[in-house]
Amino acid sequence: MTTIRRFREDDWVRVWPFLRDTFDAGDSFVHAPGCGEADIRREWILAPRATYVACEEDGAVVGSYTLKANQPGLGSHVCTCAYVVAPAARGRGTGTLMCEHSQLEAAALGFRAMQFNLVVSTNDRALRLWQKLGFATVGTLPRAFRHLRFGYVDALVMYKEIVTLPD
Amino acid sequence: MTTIRRFREDDWVRVWPFLRDTFDAGDSFVHAPGCGEADIRREWILAPRATYVACEEDGAVVGSYTLKANQPGLGSHVCTCAYVVAPAARGRGTGTLMCEHSQLEAAALGFRAMQFNLVVSTNDRALRLWQKLGFATVGTLPRAFRHLRFGYVDALVMYKEIVTLPD
Repeated sequence: MTTIRRFREDDWVRVWPFLRDTFDAGDSFVHAPGCGEADIRREWILAPRATYVACEEDGAVVGSYTLKANQPGLGSHVCTCAYVVAPAARGRGTGTLMCEHSQLEAAALGFRAMQFNLVVSTNDRALRLWQKLGFATVGTLPRAFRHLRFGYVDALVMYKEIVTLPD
Repeated sequence: MTTIRRFREDDWVRVWPFLRDTFDAGDSFVHAPGCGEADIRREWILAPRATYVACEEDGAVVGSYTLKANQPGLGSHVCTCAYVVAPAARGRGTGTLMCEHSQLEAAALGFRAMQFNLVVSTNDRALRLWQKLGFATVGTLPRAFRHLRFGYVDALVMYKEIVTLPD
């Protein structure tokens, strides 16, 4: 069984390798391939409101996600998340588990909606997952992502209200 | 005649009052009303790639805008800008002048598109201006802005490719 808990400092050595491999693929995240560990650590651990890891029963870390406000001030009721599943652990529901967990966490932290700012349009796996979990495609950014293999491709903005808002 | 040039340190005392008044209105920018000068200075002057001011012939500063990459790495060919016209100087074309200037600057800096991440849907003046200047509404974020008078209102994502991209 996979469980999700807050990131601890000693998780980094297990998280960094699969973040690096994922970003280096250049097909799903804007982080430039080859970007340094310190930069990624700052963005994955220090900048977010909270960071989580998905763990197997034997303690193996198979995924991680971050949660933070997408805008300050008058836009701070909308959060954004980023999820990475270790390549070796894909296809076993870890992404679903983390996204469902993040929506509960976001609601508990007082956020009212969740926005993904840049979902790469060729990332079928992610698209199917977010759609299954109730996210709507609310925007299309023409050629906003420079895919390492395909060149410039569209990116999607996806959005879900996670609590009922008063009119 | 209004001209546009790069921000200089001694402009801040003229820029800050109309930034503050604009943000305090709580109807067009996410910056929380009452947020401190140091925070705004960091965001308006230090964080952007470049900051500009619009000046009248007598030296009065009547507007300012910022320009920066909207994403790092594989999304860094898309920039974003923020424009503020001093309330007393509105309706005289300063917004148009700054937006046209920013597109030329962005192209010169190597950006290929410009994205506005959160245009408040009730901000008719801004919407008309961006549409006139060729920006398309590419997304709608449900109730993503907490308007000080109207409560939660939609925000729009607007986008314009500023140079021709290869397919």
